[in-house]
Amino acid sequence: MAILKPLSPFTDAKGKIPFELVRPEIRKVEKQIAEQVDAFDPGVAPYIDYICNTSGKRIRPALAILTGGAVGSITDDNIKIGVILELIHMATLVHDDIIDEATTRRKELTANAKWGNGMAVLLGDALFSHALLLATEFDDISINRKVGKASREVCEGEVIQSQRRFDLTLTKEDYFKVISMKTGALFAAATGISANLSGADEATEKALYDYGMKLGTAYQIYDDCVDLVGSEDAIGKTLGTDLEKGKLTLPMLTLLENATDEQRKKLNKRIIEQQALDFEVLVGIADYAGAIESALDTAAEMLVEARDGLKCLTESKYSTGLIDITHYLDDLINKCRK
Amino acid sequence: MAILKPLSPFTDAKGKIPFELVRPEIRKVEKQIAEQVDAFDPGVAPYIDYICNTSGKRIRPALAILTGGAVGSITDDNIKIGVILELIHMATLVHDDIIDEATTRRKELTANAKWGNGMAVLLGDALFSHALLLATEFDDISINRKVGKASREVCEGEVIQSQRRFDLTLTKEDYFKVISMKTGALFAAATGISANLSGADEATEKALYDYGMKLGTAYQIYDDCVDLVGSEDAIGKTLGTDLEKGKLTLPMLTLLENATDEQRKKLNKRIIEQQALDFEVLVGIADYAGAIESALDTAAEMLVEARDGLKCLTESKYSTGLIDITHYLDDLINKCRK
Repeated sequence: MAILKPLSPFTDAKGKIPFELVRPEIRKVEKQIAEQVDAFDPGVAPYIDYICNTSGKRIRPALAILTGGAVGSITDDNIKIGVILELIHMATLVHDDIIDEATTRRKELTANAKWGNGMAVLLGDALFSHALLLATEFDDISINRKVGKASREVCEGEVIQSQRRFDLTLTKEDYFKVISMKTGALFAAATGISANLSGADEATEKALYDYGMKLGTAYQIYDDCVDLVGSEDAIGKTLGTDLEKGKLTLPMLTLLENATDEQRKKLNKRIIEQQALDFEVLVGIADYAGAIESALDTAAEMLVEARDGLKCLTESKYSTGLIDITHYLDDLINKCRK
Repeated sequence: MAILKPLSPFTDAKGKIPFELVRPEIRKVEKQIAEQVDAFDPGVAPYIDYICNTSGKRIRPALAILTGGAVGSITDDNIKIGVILELIHMATLVHDDIIDEATTRRKELTANAKWGNGMAVLLGDALFSHALLLATEFDDISINRKVGKASREVCEGEVIQSQRRFDLTLTKEDYFKVISMKTGALFAAATGISANLSGADEATEKALYDYGMKLGTAYQIYDDCVDLVGSEDAIGKTLGTDLEKGKLTLPMLTLLENATDEQRKKLNKRIIEQQALDFEVLVGIADYAGAIESALDTAAEMLVEARDGLKCLTESKYSTGLIDITHYLDDLINKCRK
């Protein structure tokens, strides 16, 4: 299956996203995001403008648009839900950058680096509240409920993740729950709500929701692996930041699970004492490469499930586009195995 | 006019709030807030519980309830909108405490002091998103729009305030705009939306909205004066924190306005250089006491307007309760003149 050509403004250092198919619609998304900036008070708008131009890869809008095409036709509603979810995503990035003390994102200074943590907290709040206000433009209250539910899930997922840093009792089940909340929820909202807006029946909406959830979860697992081993495209990316912050991601959990008692004792000691865990330590202690492989396998299996779930759709260039995205992520995963 | 007896759990160090009249309904508010805590993931709920029990004076719910009684009858909808706005208010307090590096609130540790800034950012987000999700339980989308609009206004007001710290070009008009956004908007939402929910006609809804806006603005002016001179009840409150943070509040703006060229030069120099401004400096430079008096006069005038705006209401114990609150604030203002 041919991977669609990348659309340069919506790619990132981690690789190209195959959104060529929906280029005109993504242009509309960009236009609407720019219009949202103007809806803010003139004292606030320039800050929001900067954030909108330096964060967010428009993956969620692209999913919303492809879904619209795949289940019916692409309307302004698919664009709008994409914009709303992207604004929510951007708000979480602004707050994540504060927490991670990140100074750059996509080679630009983060809001916290530019204007301080306090201002970044407030700007994230302003973006977030605007997104939820924009959602009230849908007359159907059930759309609002779904947007609200997804937002709360993202926030709760982040809280639980933060709470369980350096926590040895974290299970794989806990990990999957956290990533399904913090990443899966907005992907699933993009595809699920968009299907609903394009008139999908309940079963189709659920299939699209599940597709988004699986894609988002697989993407997060991949991203967590990239943090440990790097990727071909992630030039200059700092590796091992999750370990440093005590985030126990899937490869680490597998490592702990498969370790001998002696190995586990060593790992646990370092985690509990919040000592730096680095590659040398890990590679020396247990089957590190195997743990990464196993996590990547899990992500790849999820992508198979994501694809299988789309069998209910009539074949079209848009349903093919949704499948292409899973293959695209498969490719990234395979490059990570190198 | 008799000031209603205070309801002890809903008072604060700054004074007693006359909510005795709506004690049973405020109990329902507390019960519903406790129920909201249970709606969070078990991993998140204990944090939210702590925040709900240590912040927020329930002023906004009390206003929503009194308004319901004053324009029609008190229903579950008035309670619910009060709960929603209180949750939004609490979310802003959690984020404000991060920005102000505050370690205690109502004698309890703040979320940032207890669990760090990162966690506090996320908990504020979780509370905020939950409040907006709860608002979608109203079937009328226009209620959601009003809640969303008020939330965005609060966030934008905070951004502008933060942006214009140490800014000598700030006018009184700018100041009034900021405080009407950051404080007035939620008070006005409490009275305006609640009036709408209790079946008020458009003119009455507007009158109640305006009352809330004026009360909230007057309250903020009073609070800004307390920061400079203290109050009888504010034992242990740190004074002058606004000055330290470069927040130019009404008394400071009046001081600058009335100063001689020589005095203004000295004040400007200190502000621009972000030097600490303390009472000694201020008192030595210009008519400091006069500037405070003048700000308190402005607040008192707003309360007169707030009362006048309620003349459209049929007299009842609830409409009297709304008027009592303005007199109560008048009393606090007069104590501040001491």
